[in-house]
Amino acid sequence: MTEQDILKALSNVQEPDLGKDLVTLNMVKDIVIDGNNVSFTIVLTTPACPMKDMMATASTNAVKFLVNKEANVKVNFTSNTTTARGDGQNQLPGVKNIIAVVSGKGGVGKSTVSANLALALAAGGAKVGLMDADIYGPSVPIMFGVRGERPLMKDAGNGKAVIVPLEKFGIKLMSIGLLVDDKNAVVWRGPMASSAIRQFITDVEWGELDYLVIDMPPGTGDIHLTMVQTVPVTGVVVVTTPQAVALADAKKGIAMFGQAQIKVPIIGLVENMAWFTPAELPNNKYYLFGKEGGKNLAEEYELPFLGHIPLVQSIREGGDAGVPALVGNDEISKQAFMEFASKAVRNIAMRNANMAPTAVVQMVE
Amino acid sequence: MTEQDILKALSNVQEPDLGKDLVTLNMVKDIVIDGNNVSFTIVLTTPACPMKDMMATASTNAVKFLVNKEANVKVNFTSNTTTARGDGQNQLPGVKNIIAVVSGKGGVGKSTVSANLALALAAGGAKVGLMDADIYGPSVPIMFGVRGERPLMKDAGNGKAVIVPLEKFGIKLMSIGLLVDDKNAVVWRGPMASSAIRQFITDVEWGELDYLVIDMPPGTGDIHLTMVQTVPVTGVVVVTTPQAVALADAKKGIAMFGQAQIKVPIIGLVENMAWFTPAELPNNKYYLFGKEGGKNLAEEYELPFLGHIPLVQSIREGGDAGVPALVGNDEISKQAFMEFASKAVRNIAMRNANMAPTAVVQMVE
Repeated sequence: MTEQDILKALSNVQEPDLGKDLVTLNMVKDIVIDGNNVSFTIVLTTPACPMKDMMATASTNAVKFLVNKEANVKVNFTSNTTTARGDGQNQLPGVKNIIAVVSGKGGVGKSTVSANLALALAAGGAKVGLMDADIYGPSVPIMFGVRGERPLMKDAGNGKAVIVPLEKFGIKLMSIGLLVDDKNAVVWRGPMASSAIRQFITDVEWGELDYLVIDMPPGTGDIHLTMVQTVPVTGVVVVTTPQAVALADAKKGIAMFGQAQIKVPIIGLVENMAWFTPAELPNNKYYLFGKEGGKNLAEEYELPFLGHIPLVQSIREGGDAGVPALVGNDEISKQAFMEFASKAVRNIAMRNANMAPTAVVQMVE
Repeated sequence: MTEQDILKALSNVQEPDLGKDLVTLNMVKDIVIDGNNVSFTIVLTTPACPMKDMMATASTNAVKFLVNKEANVKVNFTSNTTTARGDGQNQLPGVKNIIAVVSGKGGVGKSTVSANLALALAAGGAKVGLMDADIYGPSVPIMFGVRGERPLMKDAGNGKAVIVPLEKFGIKLMSIGLLVDDKNAVVWRGPMASSAIRQFITDVEWGELDYLVIDMPPGTGDIHLTMVQTVPVTGVVVVTTPQAVALADAKKGIAMFGQAQIKVPIIGLVENMAWFTPAELPNNKYYLFGKEGGKNLAEEYELPFLGHIPLVQSIREGGDAGVPALVGNDEISKQAFMEFASKAVRNIAMRNANMAPTAVVQMVE
């Protein structure tokens, strides 16, 4: 067996999402051959890659069937998260992917989805941050159980002070709720809210991250504009509940990011509060907010559908108690969020492979 | 029997909310005596007064017991809705009461509560308008089934064009959703959104109204500031669901309107989505979003509690189908909204009787 034999065999193994083989994609390294023992490393496009096991099996089979059926194949994994960052973008230089979670309508579970997306990515091994951009209704401090905690400041070395994000469950966190007393209203005009968001980008030490998830406020206003004008947003995850009034607002969000002068790709749409199942009637699904509204919207707009999240009492309870579903005990909700997150992460990798970098929006207002 | 006898008898009848008697409050007029027949008119503080029947019985009994037990008493009602408008307030001169429905957090049912409050007031005989101030997520067009309809313009006589509100179910309606195509995002910076709201006040022919209900956007931002700086808001109805993340945001809304430089009275707090009862298990209440969170918040902040609205599938379906609960068929939700509205209207009348007019806020920003 030679290195060439191995590479030839692996050139028959497809990366399932990107539709090209591992060798063409330059994903194979560190081939070591010792008698019948072969090992190599596959460099994944994301540590949270849900296709890992499938690729290990396919690679092992390729070597056995095409090179040496007696081979003992050991597949190692590492990852180098792909990015669609362009050149000359100064903000958040260490952040590979900036994912904005939006909804149009408030109260559809944007913060719950953002928190569990961040946790699912981190569970896969990625370095993840979560920025709560909802200046008027920050939920992250409650959801992560860090209400009342205050981030530290430190000297960035150039005489400028930077804010060090809090860390909880392995996620770096920043929220206006960590800076302002939660009994006080933040009554700010748009320019001041926008300025707070710019500070969250420029004055917070996010460091090296594979993913920065941004929990956006509802609507399509100042903070959304400031965000796309300040950083290159890799893509947008749209959250909706199935009811008509939520769908109508979700369409506005979709339309905003699709505008010619904004053009941020939509990673996909997730339907939250899809149904309720009482513990006493495990076979009943109550479509309290309507049935399949989100899925139908995704089809209508030809957007990837990222799945249904059921209305489970423990999701809300966990959020209120500072224990998000993904680190809680309810297997149904945990699984729903994991499936959603793995679809999202695959779509982000595909977006990075197939589409141009996002530009920071230069907008004439 | 003389007019004096009747007035003396009626001076023993209390207006139950205002705590003074009908004669002191100048609520009795048109006394007609013809042998044993007596009729008079009670001028209510609101046509939607839920205490009507109680006052009719008390007045009849007072005349019978204190003047003439053979009397045939006929009590007529009319109303002159009270107002807390001050002098020198030029905007919306024909509107007696401006009620802002706020929430802090989005998605708690602010629009549903606004729509059904407006309908309950109109059902009591009041002249009512509903302004949808949620520029980024207007729900009124869907909830009232007027999506796609466009209001007419007319010449105000001074060469200036004004917008004529749509009318549905007896309510005058205005919403950005009636002016902008609902597939388009309204991507506006704060100043432009504020300017749209000012136009809803200055350029819409609201005419004479007992109540203008304003469905505010979530949060405590530009539109809220613009509203209190443009019109004297009689009072605020706070909507919350019972969960902690909604309560946290409701507190911000309460704090905003209580600020020394804003000072708009809180009419009360209503708890929406208080519980869910499946039709198959009519005795089960599922506290999906937590139990009594709104009621406890009202107690903590010493605010009047305006009641629980259950999570009924038909409320959401009615909203999506353009038939709000109050004009729909579900008796449970109809009754919940009627009870809420009658508490709200009593508190508004008490506020008008006992507190100074609201000032338009002069704010240094």
